[in-house]
Formats: sequence, structure tokens, C-alpha cells
Amino acid sequence: MKIIHFGKEMQQTAHALHGQGKRIGCVPTMGFLHAGHLSLVKLARERSDVVILTLFVNPTQFGPQEDLAKYPRNFERDAALCREAGVDILFAPEAPEMYAADASIYVVEEKLSRGLCGASRLGHFRGVCTVVAKLFNLCMPHVAVFGEKDAQQFRIIRRMTRDLNFPVEIVSGPTLREADGLAMSSRNTYLSADERQQALVLKRALDETARLFRAGWRDATALKTAMQKIITQAPAAKIDYIEIVDDETLEPVQTLRKPALVALAVFIGKTRLIDNIVLKA
Amino acid sequence: MKIIHFGKEMQQTAHALHGQGKRIGCVPTMGFLHAGHLSLVKLARERSDVVILTLFVNPTQFGPQEDLAKYPRNFERDAALCREAGVDILFAPEAPEMYAADASIYVVEEKLSRGLCGASRLGHFRGVCTVVAKLFNLCMPHVAVFGEKDAQQFRIIRRMTRDLNFPVEIVSGPTLREADGLAMSSRNTYLSADERQQALVLKRALDETARLFRAGWRDATALKTAMQKIITQAPAAKIDYIEIVDDETLEPVQTLRKPALVALAVFIGKTRLIDNIVLKA
Repeated sequence: MKIIHFGKEMQQTAHALHGQGKRIGCVPTMGFLHAGHLSLVKLARERSDVVILTLFVNPTQFGPQEDLAKYPRNFERDAALCREAGVDILFAPEAPEMYAADASIYVVEEKLSRGLCGASRLGHFRGVCTVVAKLFNLCMPHVAVFGEKDAQQFRIIRRMTRDLNFPVEIVSGPTLREADGLAMSSRNTYLSADERQQALVLKRALDETARLFRAGWRDATALKTAMQKIITQAPAAKIDYIEIVDDETLEPVQTLRKPALVALAVFIGKTRLIDNIVLKA
Repeated sequence: MKIIHFGKEMQQTAHALHGQGKRIGCVPTMGFLHAGHLSLVKLARERSDVVILTLFVNPTQFGPQEDLAKYPRNFERDAALCREAGVDILFAPEAPEMYAADASIYVVEEKLSRGLCGASRLGHFRGVCTVVAKLFNLCMPHVAVFGEKDAQQFRIIRRMTRDLNFPVEIVSGPTLREADGLAMSSRNTYLSADERQQALVLKRALDETARLFRAGWRDATALKTAMQKIITQAPAAKIDYIEIVDDETLEPVQTLRKPALVALAVFIGKTRLIDNIVLKA
């Protein structure tokens, strides 16, 4: 496995791979890898000749009150996991390599990013779109794989790829879960043992919504109320949002007729967790 | 010469050219070509194996009060000029091909676009950056050539290419002028014979500033006053702006120490014309 820290070297390597007719698959991550990330590597490998995993804790997608400084990092462990998973190139730039001091260009999304995490994390998706556009230009992938846990992010990146005509196929991989149902996340490491237990209410609320939907419930308010009841059973839980939105436009829905995204963001103590399911008849 | 109207076909063609090891040069234009555009084609040709000229009157860079509907168009004439100039591919998409009805992604610039044309044409450079990002992804050029008449645009596109890491070399070509000094522009066609004559004050003002600079003048206010005097001699002239800014940051300067961009935007009747020179000791 090759480790690259510099953008120019990454781009030259990608250019050379294109010249050799190699198909490049890319898995953008912020590191502190878990089985969820590695399942995306597997999807990338099935669709390409050379897999690049990018590891970059992107400052522009963190708000001033957020956890940039304490975001978990462990480069050696990540590199070992990449090696085991058959990653060919680990691209791990530092922030000054990615953003010039006088950087002034951003990629913004103006519809899909209004609600959900976009509403509670101002500027977050601007940072995500900007860094993913940069990573696409540096890694020049034919296919890029993103996790469905970040449901809104996936839809926004798919939109960006379409609207800016990036020659990249966007693929998503299903959310991986711990044995008890908690969605895997690098941020789970923040949880105390007690919080870890209480965090299960997210998945419980989504499971209950799926059950009610199968039983015929179609009213979004009723479904949200049911979820709220379950989540507030956990004393450490503070709801950021519980939303049911159209799966394509991400506009809130009242009555579920088309595929709908049920998305949650809940603080368990100080740790903000997200989870989601898609409901379709 | 091949004419392509569809993005997918353009991208597939570009991909195939990359596969053959061809170097692609791109000249983005809004059509109604003149010798200035063709001089950029020549620069592209010197630097590449295959020259793509893009012809697209981009709606997102026009303000609601601007001349999108009446912007001059003549596809047959443009195609003939491209053929003569040795363009290999004329990429001429229609607006619905370039922008989906629910398009929601834009590329924005937040420093260099604050003043000059960015201040008088709100949203203009957002439209320019967005469409150039799209054209880069569709045409996949190794080198792209822009005219120096659009001084701010050139600097913003160079910044975008750097900040988003587009694998494209950005080259500029000098402003071409009519025999009497008027900078070539598709918009010159709007001018009546009398306005055409009065439009010469832009170049006259710039020439006088260059003369004063060579004579040792370094005070921006004094130089701007001298230009204002010349321009207001034309009864049809209405000054949009007369600015002297740092050539890199585009911040206004008071005393000229480093290379400075002298930029004018002047309405002659209803037609807005721009021109500029760079002063360096």
C-alpha cells in the first residue's frame, strides 16, 4: 500500500493510473476507521482496479462549536486497517496542503442542505461539497463510495456530482451496525458505557417506525411522535431533530406516499449521533 | 470539425482522447466570436493536440436586468470561424442540457469577486465559476485559455482551479483591439456608430494612466481622477467603476508599489464595456 500526503503527488499518480487504463475507486473518510468504512472499501474494490482511501479530518465541515480538535485520530491504526482491507493508496493530506491560507472558493448546495443536519450544522455541507470536489479532482476516481448512515451527505454529493458533471459514479453502502443495533460511527468512541447503552434508542425508534409503517401508518406527525416517545425514555438523550422527508428532494412530508427518509440526530450526553432508514411501500 | 451538443457525448469523447494520450486544450466562450477568441484558440493549439471551443451563453452569469435574451448569437458564423481557426471540437450545449430544473449546486468565490464587476453584477462570478467547473468536468482539458480583457474573471478562474485542485493549466491571452484601440468584445455590436466613436475613451483613459505611471505617478486617487476626466468627455459615457487594485488580491490600493490592475467598466449608452491594463514598475 502506498501512502501519499501531497495533493500534487496524488494527482500525478491518478493521472498515471488513467494512462494505464486503470479504473480508480475512491472512499473518502475522516479516518478512525471502523467496519463500516471497510465495507465501503469492499464495494470500491468490486468496482475498480485501484482503491484509494482518503483520510482527512476536514476543518471546513466543522462548525466553531463542534468537535474538530477532539475528533478521534489514529493514523497508524487506520493505515494498518487499510493495508488489511486491500486499500492500494492511502491519501492522507494535512490541512495546510488542502487549503491555501487565502482560499476563497467553495462549493455550495442550496436545496437539499436546508433541513436536517444542514439546519443544525451551518456551513457543514458547504465544507463537505468543497472537500469532496477537491478530492475528486486530486484522486480522479471513476467511482466513489459513501455510507448511507450519512444519508443527507450522500444525496448532496450525488447532486453535486450531477450538477457539476463530475465524471464519477456515486455508490452508497448500507449502514453497518454493532451487534445491538447501534450504527457504527467514529464518534461512538466519545460515549461512556452508560451513554453507549442509552444510544440504542435511536435504532429502537427507527425500528418502531418501520414496524408502524408496515402496519399501515402513513402520517408523518404520528410516526415522529412515536419516535420521540422512545428517544425521550433515555435520560441522556436530547433530540436535535426527528424528520421524515421525501427521499429525493429532502422536503418534509406529511403523508408518506413516495419513498421517505426517516432521519434522526440526537445528542447522547455531549455526543451527537445520527441514524436513518428509508421507508418505501 | 466535430460539433457536440450533449454533455455526456462531450465527456465520453474527452475520456477517449485521454485514453489515446491526447492533450486537450479548451477555450470557453459565449460565442459571437471575434479575432480575440480566435487568438485564444491559437494559444490553445500551441499547447495541446486537440482544441475544444465551448460555445454557451450561460444564463447563470447574467443578472435579471442584464442582456441574456439579446446577447448576440450566430451559430453558423461561429461554427465557420471555428473550422477556419482549426478548432477540432465545437461543444455547444443548450441551457437545459447544462442545468437540470432542480439544479442546486453552485461554485462561489468569496474574496476576489467582491469588487469590480462582482460588485456591480451580483451573482455573475458565481455563474461563471459554476459553468467553468462544469465545462472542465465535461471537456476534461489539460489546458484552458481565457482572455485578459475579462481580468477579474481570469483571476477568479485561476483561483478556482487552484482551490478546487482542477488538473487544468490556466493560460491567459492578451486583449485584442480594433485598429483604433477599442477592446474587441461581442458586445461592441450593440454600439451605434456614434457610441462606437465615444467608446474610445476607455482605451484613451488607460493609455493616459500608463503614461502618468511611467512618468512616476503612484497615487491611485490621482490616476483615477485623470481617467474620470477623460471618460466624462464622452457624453454617452456613464461610469460603472474606475478602480486600481492589487493585481493578485484585487484589493483597492492607494499607492502603487506592487503590480496593479487598472480596471474600468463604463456604460456607453446602454452598452456596458470593460477594459483594463496591468501597471508594473
